[in-house]
Amino acid sequence: MAKQIPTRADDYAQWYVEIVKRADLAENSDVRGCMVIKPYGYAIWEKMQQGLDKMFKDTGHVNAYFPLFVPKSMFEAEEKNAEGFAKECAIVTHYRLKTDPNNKGKLIVDPDAKLEEELVVRPTSEAIIWSTYRKWIQSYRDLPILINQWANVVRWEMRTRLFLRTAEFLWQEGHTAHATAMEAEKETLQMLDVYADFVENFMALPVIKGKKSEGEKFPGAIDTYCIEALMQDGKALQAGTSHFLGQNFAKAFNVQYSNKEGKLEYVWGTSWGVSTRLIGGLIMAHSDDDGLIIPPRLAPIHVVIVPIFRSEEEQTKISAAVGPLITALRHAGLSVKFDDRDTHKPGFKFAEYEMKGVPVRMAIGPRDLENGTVEIARRDTKEKHVMNVKDVVVEIPKLLEDIQKNMYARALKFRTEMTTTVETYDEFKNILNSKGGFVLAHWDGTAETETKIKEETKATVRCIPLHSTAEDGKCIYSGKPSKMRVLFARAY
Amino acid sequence: MAKQIPTRADDYAQWYVEIVKRADLAENSDVRGCMVIKPYGYAIWEKMQQGLDKMFKDTGHVNAYFPLFVPKSMFEAEEKNAEGFAKECAIVTHYRLKTDPNNKGKLIVDPDAKLEEELVVRPTSEAIIWSTYRKWIQSYRDLPILINQWANVVRWEMRTRLFLRTAEFLWQEGHTAHATAMEAEKETLQMLDVYADFVENFMALPVIKGKKSEGEKFPGAIDTYCIEALMQDGKALQAGTSHFLGQNFAKAFNVQYSNKEGKLEYVWGTSWGVSTRLIGGLIMAHSDDDGLIIPPRLAPIHVVIVPIFRSEEEQTKISAAVGPLITALRHAGLSVKFDDRDTHKPGFKFAEYEMKGVPVRMAIGPRDLENGTVEIARRDTKEKHVMNVKDVVVEIPKLLEDIQKNMYARALKFRTEMTTTVETYDEFKNILNSKGGFVLAHWDGTAETETKIKEETKATVRCIPLHSTAEDGKCIYSGKPSKMRVLFARAY
Repeated sequence: MAKQIPTRADDYAQWYVEIVKRADLAENSDVRGCMVIKPYGYAIWEKMQQGLDKMFKDTGHVNAYFPLFVPKSMFEAEEKNAEGFAKECAIVTHYRLKTDPNNKGKLIVDPDAKLEEELVVRPTSEAIIWSTYRKWIQSYRDLPILINQWANVVRWEMRTRLFLRTAEFLWQEGHTAHATAMEAEKETLQMLDVYADFVENFMALPVIKGKKSEGEKFPGAIDTYCIEALMQDGKALQAGTSHFLGQNFAKAFNVQYSNKEGKLEYVWGTSWGVSTRLIGGLIMAHSDDDGLIIPPRLAPIHVVIVPIFRSEEEQTKISAAVGPLITALRHAGLSVKFDDRDTHKPGFKFAEYEMKGVPVRMAIGPRDLENGTVEIARRDTKEKHVMNVKDVVVEIPKLLEDIQKNMYARALKFRTEMTTTVETYDEFKNILNSKGGFVLAHWDGTAETETKIKEETKATVRCIPLHSTAEDGKCIYSGKPSKMRVLFARAY
Repeated sequence: MAKQIPTRADDYAQWYVEIVKRADLAENSDVRGCMVIKPYGYAIWEKMQQGLDKMFKDTGHVNAYFPLFVPKSMFEAEEKNAEGFAKECAIVTHYRLKTDPNNKGKLIVDPDAKLEEELVVRPTSEAIIWSTYRKWIQSYRDLPILINQWANVVRWEMRTRLFLRTAEFLWQEGHTAHATAMEAEKETLQMLDVYADFVENFMALPVIKGKKSEGEKFPGAIDTYCIEALMQDGKALQAGTSHFLGQNFAKAFNVQYSNKEGKLEYVWGTSWGVSTRLIGGLIMAHSDDDGLIIPPRLAPIHVVIVPIFRSEEEQTKISAAVGPLITALRHAGLSVKFDDRDTHKPGFKFAEYEMKGVPVRMAIGPRDLENGTVEIARRDTKEKHVMNVKDVVVEIPKLLEDIQKNMYARALKFRTEMTTTVETYDEFKNILNSKGGFVLAHWDGTAETETKIKEETKATVRCIPLHSTAEDGKCIYSGKPSKMRVLFARAY
């Protein structure tokens, strides 16, 4: 490894950039705002996809694929949605290049190949999907439709950060259609639960479920629900959203069904998504000053085995002893890497796998061979201990389970410590400036107050928590009556 | 089911369209040339992805993700590649829409948001990937790079056909970088073998491996290898390609590495891909006049169970008896659907699952319950037989294996019958017009002859087969000397 990376305390933003770079997760491309997801980062995304895809299918959803392009007239049909995304859309206007007559070997856009109607590169797919659902839905028998799509989308962000905010990103977007409002609302909340389950149990990251304020909801939705997670710098990250669309898109695209009585009604909809942004959240929530820490359930490599040898003979002996161990661990369902490069020293390798966040490291030297032991180091706590070789296959899966739990517990403890209940605006500002984190405070529910607070403190209403109890109080800003506390934070 | 579909003999093209539609695989979208892949069609693609992805990983490849957009100056760097794709590129020129001042609620492209440099929506990713590899490769130690990407690409085709030729399609594209020409050539052929293995063993479709002629090779490649399959109408389908890129992209993007002696050399490259086009090939190769026939290894549903009942009581009894059977089949790794809808009669369901190509249908009525039997129908041959319930869990997996093999054998028999060796141009034309299929003939190897034959007969050199023996002869067209026969056909 080259020079030290900045610590989280010194420069959290730069620390994040260095982790992404040195753990070989992603990098900026030569295309403005677009990233290259490198193999190790993509392997984490594949693990996320597998986990989520199974949960979607277990709840009755199927995958499908809809076009990348949305004709402008279709895009603008749901006006609020269109307005919400219009300012950040990549627009295709031509379908051909031609040789530049003034510059041999160069190409120019062929002015004769201008499209009659411009195409918007999807920033989200409600428009194209609801225009398709119109053809699929006639009767109540055609409902519900429970479809998910894995896709790339483009939002022309001016300020981008790897994983957290990029012009192109990968995501999944669920789009469902239902006969009744109640069924659609149930679906919206079910998928919020699926997301919370995933983030808590795979990513080892506790979340607060809640509803967005009017100002923060998805353009075109009636209600937007979200899960909010806390990063180590005390800022919040929206980790997933689930929208109750009401009949907004059904009306915009004239999607009606005949009910059991033969009467025509508009269809009710939901949409929900999580993206490669989750990888940013994973890094920021768990990693330390030595690098990434990946929860075992999402780790591309569970166990790295580093042999310690001084001669070729020792190397050969260790390799021979390690072989059956690798086989046994793989049979137990674990992903194992044996790094027997003789071009790098063990210390270098240790640092490399710490940087890459591999949950368990196993070192084996000549003395271990004699003793029938290995040295185990866990990445989350950096604790080391000696283990008998014969226990490895039983103990390592347990250790991984323990790491997964410990990471969650640690993140939960952090969040608990970093959640403050305040009564006054002064307290509110003090907490934000001194400590950060989540702040529970009374709010009068108006957009005006929300905007003022945001302007003055950069904190926003992250959500109106689903599971908080009613409590009469006064808005910290306006002093007007409030029925419950909402969750404030500065956010990514 | 509505009215009969045209038979293959009557109207093969329309038969194909109807199968795609009625088996619920895909449909045209409202976006010119782009398709919607419906859940059942997408489920086949997911099976293909799983099969291929495992084969790629087993041969040492990893997945990654590169940007959708390619800046024009980067796109044009490898001139032959750029020239090859320039005429069919979607071009992004603007990044924002704004409210139309003359038309409330409508949007127009914001002329102030014109990009300084236009972006090409990737038709293939060599340019963006090699411009990235330049940053990753310094030394021989950084090689090889063995990366695959699952992605969408856009090629502005004027005449489109569902799955076979669409403006946007899904595919995988492998892009590898090597220290030596020999290693890159070995990789090129290895991936050709992987594709052949997949198409033959998953898709149950025999292929001919070969090399493309100069005129048909990938723009920017030194050599293009392909696998060619035969469809039931006697036309060929290129099912996958693997390109030896030489140092063309390395030179265009200045990707050099220092070898073991410390000397700078250009890197050698390959690229290889298969796409959703394979689904079109699957349909056209195997299906019959009653619908799709899916080989078991790619079937989203292996077994459909249809209960035959006249009363609710019978229905309940059958359901109770079927429950443990479903569980047992699922434990055996099979995908089982139990269709107990009481809104449709068994005959309707039989036709529906025939149309959808489910490999095995199991029907159970009251008499079966008494006898402890089920009625099994296999989709490939339409044979029916009675099976003891207690044998189902052992026999069904064997039956699926048998269907898989039989489908391959049938396709191979067809191809053998439809491959003709000819000596003269008259024979060549006669065979093409009377019978079609693959035609093996001598060719002088020149582009002129290839073009003439194509103009006169619409047949092209599909490939120069890898495994044919040298044989002196005379070109059927020019009479000039030829060293071996090549594979001709009319093609999709």
